[in-house]
Amino acid sequence: MAMFRPRFAAALALILAAPLVAQGYDDVDPFIGTGGEGHTFPGAVSPFGMVQLSPDTDTSCVIRECYDHAAGYRYEDPTIQGFSHTHFSGSGHSDLGDFLLMPVAGDAVPIEPGDAKKPGSGYRSRFSHDTEIAQPGYYAVTLSDPGVRAEMTAGTRIGVHRYSFPKGKAAHLVLDLRSSLYNYPGKILWSSLRLHPDGTITGSRETRGWAPARKLFFAMRFSAPLKDHAFISTEKDVAYKGFRAPGHGTENVAERSGRALVGRFDFGKLDEPLEVKVALSSVDEAGAIANLESEAGGFDAVRANARAAWEKALSAVEIEAPAPMRKNLYTALYHTLLAPSVAGDADGRYRGPDNAVHRADGFTFRSTFSLWDTFRAEHPLLTLIQPEKTNSDFVRSLIASRKASPHGILPVWQFQGQETWTMIGYHAVPVIAEAYLKGIGGFDANEALEAMVASATYAPYGGLGDYMKLGYVAIDREPEAASKTVEYAYDDWTIARMAEAMGRKDIAAAFSKRAGNWRNSFDAKTGFLRARKSDGGFRVPFDPTAINYGSDYTEGNAWQYSWFVPHDQAALFDVMGGDAAVVKKLDEMFEFDMSGIDYSHAEDIAGLIGQYIHGNEPSHHVAYLYNYAGAPWRTQERLKQIVDSQYKPTPDGLSGNDDLGQMSAWLMFTALGFYPVTPGSLEYVIGRPFVERATLNLPNGKRFTIAANVGEDRPYVGRVLLNGRPLTRSYLRHEEIMAGGELRFEMQAQPNRTWAVAQADRPYSMSRR
Amino acid sequence: MAMFRPRFAAALALILAAPLVAQGYDDVDPFIGTGGEGHTFPGAVSPFGMVQLSPDTDTSCVIRECYDHAAGYRYEDPTIQGFSHTHFSGSGHSDLGDFLLMPVAGDAVPIEPGDAKKPGSGYRSRFSHDTEIAQPGYYAVTLSDPGVRAEMTAGTRIGVHRYSFPKGKAAHLVLDLRSSLYNYPGKILWSSLRLHPDGTITGSRETRGWAPARKLFFAMRFSAPLKDHAFISTEKDVAYKGFRAPGHGTENVAERSGRALVGRFDFGKLDEPLEVKVALSSVDEAGAIANLESEAGGFDAVRANARAAWEKALSAVEIEAPAPMRKNLYTALYHTLLAPSVAGDADGRYRGPDNAVHRADGFTFRSTFSLWDTFRAEHPLLTLIQPEKTNSDFVRSLIASRKASPHGILPVWQFQGQETWTMIGYHAVPVIAEAYLKGIGGFDANEALEAMVASATYAPYGGLGDYMKLGYVAIDREPEAASKTVEYAYDDWTIARMAEAMGRKDIAAAFSKRAGNWRNSFDAKTGFLRARKSDGGFRVPFDPTAINYGSDYTEGNAWQYSWFVPHDQAALFDVMGGDAAVVKKLDEMFEFDMSGIDYSHAEDIAGLIGQYIHGNEPSHHVAYLYNYAGAPWRTQERLKQIVDSQYKPTPDGLSGNDDLGQMSAWLMFTALGFYPVTPGSLEYVIGRPFVERATLNLPNGKRFTIAANVGEDRPYVGRVLLNGRPLTRSYLRHEEIMAGGELRFEMQAQPNRTWAVAQADRPYSMSRR
Repeated sequence: MAMFRPRFAAALALILAAPLVAQGYDDVDPFIGTGGEGHTFPGAVSPFGMVQLSPDTDTSCVIRECYDHAAGYRYEDPTIQGFSHTHFSGSGHSDLGDFLLMPVAGDAVPIEPGDAKKPGSGYRSRFSHDTEIAQPGYYAVTLSDPGVRAEMTAGTRIGVHRYSFPKGKAAHLVLDLRSSLYNYPGKILWSSLRLHPDGTITGSRETRGWAPARKLFFAMRFSAPLKDHAFISTEKDVAYKGFRAPGHGTENVAERSGRALVGRFDFGKLDEPLEVKVALSSVDEAGAIANLESEAGGFDAVRANARAAWEKALSAVEIEAPAPMRKNLYTALYHTLLAPSVAGDADGRYRGPDNAVHRADGFTFRSTFSLWDTFRAEHPLLTLIQPEKTNSDFVRSLIASRKASPHGILPVWQFQGQETWTMIGYHAVPVIAEAYLKGIGGFDANEALEAMVASATYAPYGGLGDYMKLGYVAIDREPEAASKTVEYAYDDWTIARMAEAMGRKDIAAAFSKRAGNWRNSFDAKTGFLRARKSDGGFRVPFDPTAINYGSDYTEGNAWQYSWFVPHDQAALFDVMGGDAAVVKKLDEMFEFDMSGIDYSHAEDIAGLIGQYIHGNEPSHHVAYLYNYAGAPWRTQERLKQIVDSQYKPTPDGLSGNDDLGQMSAWLMFTALGFYPVTPGSLEYVIGRPFVERATLNLPNGKRFTIAANVGEDRPYVGRVLLNGRPLTRSYLRHEEIMAGGELRFEMQAQPNRTWAVAQADRPYSMSRR
Repeated sequence: MAMFRPRFAAALALILAAPLVAQGYDDVDPFIGTGGEGHTFPGAVSPFGMVQLSPDTDTSCVIRECYDHAAGYRYEDPTIQGFSHTHFSGSGHSDLGDFLLMPVAGDAVPIEPGDAKKPGSGYRSRFSHDTEIAQPGYYAVTLSDPGVRAEMTAGTRIGVHRYSFPKGKAAHLVLDLRSSLYNYPGKILWSSLRLHPDGTITGSRETRGWAPARKLFFAMRFSAPLKDHAFISTEKDVAYKGFRAPGHGTENVAERSGRALVGRFDFGKLDEPLEVKVALSSVDEAGAIANLESEAGGFDAVRANARAAWEKALSAVEIEAPAPMRKNLYTALYHTLLAPSVAGDADGRYRGPDNAVHRADGFTFRSTFSLWDTFRAEHPLLTLIQPEKTNSDFVRSLIASRKASPHGILPVWQFQGQETWTMIGYHAVPVIAEAYLKGIGGFDANEALEAMVASATYAPYGGLGDYMKLGYVAIDREPEAASKTVEYAYDDWTIARMAEAMGRKDIAAAFSKRAGNWRNSFDAKTGFLRARKSDGGFRVPFDPTAINYGSDYTEGNAWQYSWFVPHDQAALFDVMGGDAAVVKKLDEMFEFDMSGIDYSHAEDIAGLIGQYIHGNEPSHHVAYLYNYAGAPWRTQERLKQIVDSQYKPTPDGLSGNDDLGQMSAWLMFTALGFYPVTPGSLEYVIGRPFVERATLNLPNGKRFTIAANVGEDRPYVGRVLLNGRPLTRSYLRHEEIMAGGELRFEMQAQPNRTWAVAQADRPYSMSRR
């Protein structure tokens, strides 16, 4: 924060002198989050693109060491191992890093990456950040060991590499199918390489990683003729080697398959840069070839397309703010436009959760659903900044996945169509409910509701059997029972809301009842959410500060999780003892004395402000809760505290994993002055803005502008005007945004302790409205 | 032989008293070849069916020990481990044994097979041959440990089990996905099990065996409701176990995947026998379900269909002969009707050599092409006994496989669409050439010829680069060079024949020239085929009796291989020194003193008569070669010697691997009195018949009858009458058979030393005609 403030002020001075035009594209800095715990990647990707073509600095990790390299690239690392085609943006756990390609110049072509500490010991290369350029859809770096300028760009299902080799040196590429992110021993189940008569290379890989037996295929074409090639298997101790395929004894073979393959491609000395166009498919190699051919053009054309696509996508929000904040916000906006990414082929085929191939009829299959994170703010944001079709695609993809699910339920944490069972809840449910309630069409609501009910009543999943029987998840039979109970209760409320809107009264009634189940896990005596055992008692010993795996809570403790009743905060606050007690407890959380407390054993615990942990999702709505206790000015204070301390326009600028856009969506909403505390309520809770002006170019063609006289010396909201009329409540309705108009914040130096404090002006709570 | 003769005589007496009607179905004994080295299986299969549902007596072997259990069942074994759905009929090398199912009765359900020596130590069971029934399409046995009567039947893509459990005992099934034939360590790459809401079980397996990364899927339905089930993973030491899927901690899950899975299915106490219907697919689980549904009916209906299909298929040849010979012959006929088996799904989809899914348009994709064996007599026989459509399907499947081949060449040894690269040559070429020259339509001849030429000119395959450059395969660069040279030369001749018939003179000329390449490997000095080095010299030391892997020869030595110039035996005999020298050398081969010679280190070397090795294919045409040297009566003598010693109607009745019907096709042709020494010549070399009467019900609707006054005291052919007119040549033309009619052999006690001895009356040789 000390580093940040002066730059903020300097930039503020600069921006006030510059014309206030939206410069979205140039303001994006893909390096934000590539250091620290952001887990973002700097490489080339198109909006929601299937291909994320990005440098991997090290893939030689195992298990916990992998955490730092969840996105392949780590800003602190001194070398680049290669460029692979798939990366998550900000995930905690990880996988991917598929089909790593690296240029090698000269006569000797190592097929091992070598040691980062021993330059020249392999194909990896040193590089300097000074040579790097990262823009939406473009990445470049100079690899100093081979002396190669490497550039990357990406389309929807393709990535294009361009390598400028040093004059007079033979150009080679190494394709290492052994390399992968989170590369646990035995991860590569099978892989294959094939050279087609027309020079196309195809291949496949089946990995046992975050998703078991995940299949991915590629097709690759070069701009220069292939002079020679080798398909090498480095596997040792194979009990059965099979019969001699043609070309046995040589490496210059038409195909090779195995568990440890490296491809070498030789081009001789080149006068022109070498372009390598790669397409992916989860379906098959023919799908990858068709995807390759569905996006025409060479590097420059693909790059121009990517830029145009990004300019369009980023134009959804026009931001006027000081440069550092613009950089934070446009980068945040960029990060919210990466997932759920396209996962189906150009011809509509996709691989579903049953590991079988299906066809999307009338929609594009999308995956990478990090739903525990993204139901909160990422999906609500996308309903405002992306076309109805995109949001409809999400819902149809979720329903299609449910149909292909061996369990008959909606995705939990899915990528490339494959379920990982990561995190908790059935948060596809609020995503669908929100889409329906916001009027997003293009899907069958009855089919959707059926899928939602199926997911909420599938006994084998996460203690749901007990939950349905006892009204809570029992900790003696299911870990993280307290978190599960409250998240299920919220999800249930969204089912009730959608069922009610559809006139399905029986379902609405049943799930409204279930929505109150959070009460069964709340301990009025300690004032905390706690896990109950199947005999009804709370589990002891109880330490509200303890964070452990298999504890009562999911990636957190009682401090963070005791606030999670987004659909009925008022009822929770009643149990907690009323407004004053709640404000005191919220303050206690933010101001908790953390001396002597160490959470370094736990992943995803970062960005601490006392027991408020901004780096992880359970805290994300907490700062907005003062509004529910009649103290909106305290929300405004906390938001400034969080924004100032948790986001910086630097590689280590994200305080926690971006989580497929959720951390970024939080900032985007918060900067606009409101936040969807309760997706499904069709309300956004008003905080305070961090922009001077921002305009949402809404998917319905209307414009909604936020204007504010923000300033360091004006941290409080004095008045809020909606289309010129004072808004006395501390929330905004979705239809008010969608109608277009202006939301004006009159900021002031002192708190307004009378605005929106009345019960009637507080945001939605089920038991109040 | 001592055992056999008296029974033959007794049966002969019996048959003479019985009506001489064709009883094909009842004469088949699927146990023939299940002992000794036959490698056949006794289980249930439909003609060319995708499913071969058969008992496996032991799958716990590794590497060389596996050889004896190539077909899963070994007649000598005391226990049955289970019933699996895929088996080769008589292959040397092996794989398959997919989806092993075993009934268990009572409360304890072991999931390990246990030790055959310790009854009750696992799910395997003892059994007695007395309880076994094996018929075409039906197999039954009583499993004495669980007290279960087990019956099997099969359709085209389905197998049906029927288990009669003892009254009062709970019925269970164990499905062991860890079990496989030739189960080398690490063979199971991945597998999965899934219970669908309608009770259907599906699953998959990917194995690294004879074919790398072979994928197979199944769907399974039960006649009784499933009361409980378990999907169990027994894998240890998994570095990464993934997140908790629903039902974690229990085994009663909707799905499980892993490398070591066992399924357990519980039905409680049953009043009726339990039927289990299983379908396979190489494509996907949806394909397996569709295949399951494409063949209606329960056990009895499927069994009746299978019987009808077999009666129809076996009616292609009506045989009158003594019962033991009828048993030998109908069993042989049965064995010739198992492969190339259906490998595509009911909807036309199939998995090709590129491991990708394709669709057969207008034909049924067939695989299990053991071409090095079957080009000799099996495929020629099928052109006489199977509809044109079947033979056309073979050709179209070969061409389709070539299109999907990463190498762009025709199959070598393929099953389930996957190439194994086993054995040598490009013998899809003579199969296609024969089909074309015999007028079998339904395929594109130009496409076929292009595929043949591509296969014959693909330099990386088996020394073809040297062959094209030097005129022979060079032993210093490619093992088994001598065998490869002569087999390529023959295959080339068939290309020339087909090209000539198509008017493609350039190709005909080029390949006619290549057809003479056998000369480059023949050493006139020693009188043997030998391997040359790239410098032109023959490899030394040279021992014509040595059989070793990597030697000059393929599964044989100079004695067997020196006779392989089927398209120009006359020219070979000239080089060998003429008729007398050839007859002397042939006699020397058959009468070779084998004392002190041990071939037990080599697989597939069985059925020895001197250096004549009937158990393996290189010898198969040799007895007929006396005809080419003007001594047909010597062929007649040798045939009797071979038939009497190499075939018996007993489990150990085959002297070598049946090789997907080739051993059986040899007997079938030989018994009819002629043999296709030179497929592609449209000639059959006349030997002597072993039937009293046989009628071929030809695919064109005509009938061709062989009649002979055979008898132990009449071992020689006196005269041959074709449609009543004496035939003075020692060969029959294909068109003469296809025209229908009668071939009558007048057998006699003494050799006819004048019949068909003239050069003009000898069979085809390229350099003569």
